[in-house]
Amino acid sequence: MQSEIRKKLLDAFSNNEDQYLSGQTLADTIGCSRTAIWKHIEELRKDGFELEAIRNKGYRIVKTPERVSADEIRLGLKTKYLGQSIHYEDAVDSTQRVAHRLAYDQSMEGTVVVAEEQTLGRGRMERKWYSPKYTGIWMSIILRPKIPLPKAPQLTLIAAVAVVQAIEELTELTPQIKWPNDILINGKKMTGILTELQAEADQINSVIIGMGINVNQKLEDFPIELREIATSLAIEQGVYFSRSAIIRSVLTHLEKLYFIYIEKGFFPIKILWESYAISIGKTIKARTLSNVIEGKALGITDDGVLRIEDHSGEIHYIYSADIELSE
Amino acid sequence: MQSEIRKKLLDAFSNNEDQYLSGQTLADTIGCSRTAIWKHIEELRKDGFELEAIRNKGYRIVKTPERVSADEIRLGLKTKYLGQSIHYEDAVDSTQRVAHRLAYDQSMEGTVVVAEEQTLGRGRMERKWYSPKYTGIWMSIILRPKIPLPKAPQLTLIAAVAVVQAIEELTELTPQIKWPNDILINGKKMTGILTELQAEADQINSVIIGMGINVNQKLEDFPIELREIATSLAIEQGVYFSRSAIIRSVLTHLEKLYFIYIEKGFFPIKILWESYAISIGKTIKARTLSNVIEGKALGITDDGVLRIEDHSGEIHYIYSADIELSE
Repeated sequence: MQSEIRKKLLDAFSNNEDQYLSGQTLADTIGCSRTAIWKHIEELRKDGFELEAIRNKGYRIVKTPERVSADEIRLGLKTKYLGQSIHYEDAVDSTQRVAHRLAYDQSMEGTVVVAEEQTLGRGRMERKWYSPKYTGIWMSIILRPKIPLPKAPQLTLIAAVAVVQAIEELTELTPQIKWPNDILINGKKMTGILTELQAEADQINSVIIGMGINVNQKLEDFPIELREIATSLAIEQGVYFSRSAIIRSVLTHLEKLYFIYIEKGFFPIKILWESYAISIGKTIKARTLSNVIEGKALGITDDGVLRIEDHSGEIHYIYSADIELSE
Repeated sequence: MQSEIRKKLLDAFSNNEDQYLSGQTLADTIGCSRTAIWKHIEELRKDGFELEAIRNKGYRIVKTPERVSADEIRLGLKTKYLGQSIHYEDAVDSTQRVAHRLAYDQSMEGTVVVAEEQTLGRGRMERKWYSPKYTGIWMSIILRPKIPLPKAPQLTLIAAVAVVQAIEELTELTPQIKWPNDILINGKKMTGILTELQAEADQINSVIIGMGINVNQKLEDFPIELREIATSLAIEQGVYFSRSAIIRSVLTHLEKLYFIYIEKGFFPIKILWESYAISIGKTIKARTLSNVIEGKALGITDDGVLRIEDHSGEIHYIYSADIELSE
């Protein structure tokens, strides 16, 4: 329950912005000892917060752990390809656009583009992705798998499993996957994944996996229209997380899964994916470009295609759709 | 046989570069009347050549018809989409690279990139494409067909038919297609086509068709190693051609074929394609990434895949290969 105290501590500071709070005031507000407060203050410092302490006045947060750097990501990264080349940008239109250019210009497999801010972040089907400065992970990863074109969407599912594993490793949260590309916590969207590709006729040149992971946003950082449907790790667990640690973990898990995939195909990934999937066995509505299919989500095929059984018992194979839980 | 005189006339000028040739000298060399020489000189002028005529000295070519402009291409272009937006560049690394960026940035369907020179022109599989200034057509066309990913290579075949039709319309030559993407005249490569695509998971965002058409090169314009295997329209017919007229014709034919394809599928294109194909019925060697298959080329499937029957009677389906005529 350490994180409970930390959450309340951060809430106290954020409710009294720019004011000094004494150890006693904090202890009283939170309902714990002054020693506990002192211990958590030290932990915040370790995590990159800058706190000012003035005798007889108390503590004030001067700076939250904001920026990520390529060096910081590399520190302790033990992957073979992923992240061996990192393009760190302060602000870009979208990391996908930057990665597309790098991919076309023959950048090496595993090249990663990370930006602190996207001014034109996008999700699937040209939907806007809200990606403000210093709060989330806006990242694109270039892969060059030698697989047939129609298998490329499987990489979305692989990336989703990697993000879930990273979140499970570094937080106390339990993310779930909504086919094909959303990762939810407590029913709210925490991560979106966008898989794009460049090909020469029938041969993949590059697959560009983009991900937006909401990490340190507070609820009020989201536009009002997103507050009901979006969330961040910080909102859910009440602590701030090191974004570079999460990036490292995502890259590590993704590389491991990618190697398994290249060697053994999609089947081992499918097992993992289904274990995290929110919709399997539930009644869902799948909106495709041409129609809406309602029925029970049976799972995904060995190729990653969603199978739905409608009310008449007919099985539908869904390659691309928006999914809505009907319950 | 008008073009025969014109060819000899241009040869005479090019063999005596920067010298004045009198009407009489030209008539004697070519073996025609001075009136015929005069008539052809006027025709060259109409085609964009600048000729200087000095009394008692004769004629000299000052400038060949060199540059193309977006306006010139547009003049008389009656397409609905193709070429309605033209990006004309003097020199680029490759028109494909420029078109990739435009395509990713949502440029409209039918956008065309034309450059006078490519410093890094490429063919299939990263092969260099020699594209010197003012001599050929280096062009990329952005399409946005709503077709499944695996059908994208069909657009290479559609583009090849369009180029053949344009050449047939504007020249006296008979081009032939070598599967999948070469257009030959008298067995030498006159045009190469490179089809690339960008997709979001399983949906095509854009198909970018690049073509290099050798138009006005003289034999000595090609590097020595290419002189045996490459050719240009000018070399084959002995006249210079208006590159903008060819571009217009290619765009017009391509749009017509593309509309047929979108409406009726690949089958009508397949019939046309096979009528121009050099290899059908012949013994060929197909080098794929993994092996070499020798046998009789039977044709292409309704999907555009090459069918080869090997010596044991087994049928092979070739999605991607280099083809060599065995005879």
